[in-house]
Amino acid sequence: MKKYEEMSRDELLHLKKELEREYEDAKGLGLKLNMARGLPSAEQLDMEADFFGMLFPDSSFISEAGVDCRNYGELVGISEARRLMAQMMEISPEEVIVFGNSSLNVMYDTVCRSMILGVCGSTPWCKLPKVKFLCPVPGYDRHFAITEQFGIEMINIPMTKDGPDMDMVEEYVNNDSAVKGIWCVPKYSNPQGITYSDETVRRFAALKPAAEDFRIYWDNAYTIHHLYNGKEDVLLEILSECRKAGNEDMVFKFCSTSKVTFPGSGIAALGASKKNLDFVKSVITIQTIGHDKVNQLRHVRYFKDINGMHEHMKKHAEIIRPKFELVVNTLDKELSGLGIGEWTNPNGGYFVSFESMPGCAKDIVALCKEAGVTLTGAGATYPYKKDPKDSNIRIAPTYPKISELSEALKIFVLCVKLSSVKKLLEAV
Amino acid sequence: MKKYEEMSRDELLHLKKELEREYEDAKGLGLKLNMARGLPSAEQLDMEADFFGMLFPDSSFISEAGVDCRNYGELVGISEARRLMAQMMEISPEEVIVFGNSSLNVMYDTVCRSMILGVCGSTPWCKLPKVKFLCPVPGYDRHFAITEQFGIEMINIPMTKDGPDMDMVEEYVNNDSAVKGIWCVPKYSNPQGITYSDETVRRFAALKPAAEDFRIYWDNAYTIHHLYNGKEDVLLEILSECRKAGNEDMVFKFCSTSKVTFPGSGIAALGASKKNLDFVKSVITIQTIGHDKVNQLRHVRYFKDINGMHEHMKKHAEIIRPKFELVVNTLDKELSGLGIGEWTNPNGGYFVSFESMPGCAKDIVALCKEAGVTLTGAGATYPYKKDPKDSNIRIAPTYPKISELSEALKIFVLCVKLSSVKKLLEAV
Repeated sequence: MKKYEEMSRDELLHLKKELEREYEDAKGLGLKLNMARGLPSAEQLDMEADFFGMLFPDSSFISEAGVDCRNYGELVGISEARRLMAQMMEISPEEVIVFGNSSLNVMYDTVCRSMILGVCGSTPWCKLPKVKFLCPVPGYDRHFAITEQFGIEMINIPMTKDGPDMDMVEEYVNNDSAVKGIWCVPKYSNPQGITYSDETVRRFAALKPAAEDFRIYWDNAYTIHHLYNGKEDVLLEILSECRKAGNEDMVFKFCSTSKVTFPGSGIAALGASKKNLDFVKSVITIQTIGHDKVNQLRHVRYFKDINGMHEHMKKHAEIIRPKFELVVNTLDKELSGLGIGEWTNPNGGYFVSFESMPGCAKDIVALCKEAGVTLTGAGATYPYKKDPKDSNIRIAPTYPKISELSEALKIFVLCVKLSSVKKLLEAV
Repeated sequence: MKKYEEMSRDELLHLKKELEREYEDAKGLGLKLNMARGLPSAEQLDMEADFFGMLFPDSSFISEAGVDCRNYGELVGISEARRLMAQMMEISPEEVIVFGNSSLNVMYDTVCRSMILGVCGSTPWCKLPKVKFLCPVPGYDRHFAITEQFGIEMINIPMTKDGPDMDMVEEYVNNDSAVKGIWCVPKYSNPQGITYSDETVRRFAALKPAAEDFRIYWDNAYTIHHLYNGKEDVLLEILSECRKAGNEDMVFKFCSTSKVTFPGSGIAALGASKKNLDFVKSVITIQTIGHDKVNQLRHVRYFKDINGMHEHMKKHAEIIRPKFELVVNTLDKELSGLGIGEWTNPNGGYFVSFESMPGCAKDIVALCKEAGVTLTGAGATYPYKKDPKDSNIRIAPTYPKISELSEALKIFVLCVKLSSVKKLLEAV
């Protein structure tokens, strides 16, 4: 196949006509497909059919420490739930607080708390003239939305195959005391599926922040979410690395079972040093009396321990892996060698990241939309929804059925081709 | 029985000796009883043995609008849960957002949001030199803890038998633009069990706040929590009264099923005008993707509608009412006519409020503690834990078994007598 950029104007015009015809046909199908968000499919959710009915009413609501999980209390979570989440987060149970159903909510509240009350006694951020966060890009739109809502200035940090550009991270963090945080999805990153290298993690752990209240916001959302394709990524554990570097207070770890059990009915957790957790506890004891302990108990009794979770995630992978393979194979087959896009081939997580020719992402997403295929909004993977090159598109293959995904991908590659041809014709 | 204050010094000294002997005997029993918090008893929680197992896995997780409750989404709650909570709150479903397991958390977040982002576009409170809240006293300690954490100045407003002193409320709210809120438990108030009169509610609705971002924080925690003693209190619905007065944006209503189903696993709700809810939605859409919809579904399918809830609360009352009767009967029998205390006899809620002689509350709570009976800390019912008269004690009779409660009350009346005698002897 010839690279598009090597085509003559006539060849491009001819190709454009052909693609436009195909596109009109596609629109005529009246499709309504969605690859916008990282939602588990109904098939995945059905796997846990016994989850809600399994425990009750026959068995006890009493935790191993004798707590009646139906009543008030246990701010930091019941001990067996802290242990389970600690295994998932590869830290100690006493380094974990178990929260409610949403790690996003825990992250939001963590930033919010810093705005009003500071971090472990530091000046509340709302009293400072300027607060900045570093944002590896492309990244997770909901992270950026949090810092945007609080008026925190966001600075793009380019991702490399090993994680964020650490030269830039060190430069900012070690020299600018207005830089109070960095958003990280360190394993199977959203949207690229990149896992930070050991060196990257160690450089994070060795940071010498100018701000005492700088924290790494380590959202390990996909820690056990392998595709089990024979190549499972391994991530160094950040809290222990920080501790080795004398920096144990520098990281907040976030985790949840949203994509293990149920997105709306999982349990979330925060992992951090004793100093950080003591501060968080002193604040949240005013915010709530406790989270849903019955759901905590349900999770522990369902999985027993981390091994139960891994076995469970293998079943998820059986459903998800063919979808990822379909995406990557389709892109390989339809777009390889054309020079009009690049894409990732991750070993886990929930996304494939696509880089179009500069200036094409918005157009591709709009073309897809018109043909009935909803993608994540172009720009969503950048702070302020501004992708400087207008090139990144996040593909979320998990929710549609294989047959729907196949239809959606046909539209997608068609729109990539059409948009690329139009862009090249602008230049010649 | 002779009033203590009419006793001679010799009579008091004699009585003191007798009471001290009794107290030493009581201490010897080695009791460990708790009347500190408004916890449902295990017996109440056992009533809902079928709650968690009832629905699943046999029935569907699909809401009436076709939403898969196991997946992400539905920020404001599924429609049937909004309807159920709207019935409980006596407003319309579109005036309700259903949240997670804790109305305290909703209240905390509502104040927190105002601190950083203001109220519907007003100046964020953290940017103001001074923010004040009115606090009807005695009141709910956890309300006061929220405003204290955020550095909001709290002003005591005395409770009357009809609710807060409305002359004072009007004076503050209508003239001081730093006054941004008032904490209310309008029905079966915590701790006195007072229900605001129609006139009080109408005067609330007719307030003309100096501050555009003043809101009434209407925590109707005990709205359906009657003792069913034949005298159910009725509370005017505040949102519609505010609307009639042209003030529909002036109130936030809070409610939960924490003491209907389970304290840790219920659902909470916020009720307010469209303008208020639109603002709240615009903020919380960044905070979370949605709350636990499976639990929402479970509640709706369990109760069907408000009638199901009322029937359910009658069963709770069967368990709770004898405990309240025991408290009031014991106090009547042991303390009436002695002039050393007054107490409430509520028709619902979770507390009995006791007023000792001035300067005795701390001593009584400490004496009880030493004899193995834990009460809510003296002062807890006042902002900054400062009861100016040191006289209010909150009695929470629901958690202990009847036999334990009976033991605890014996100790309590003994300690009241002993403390009062000591106090009177100081004066003569």
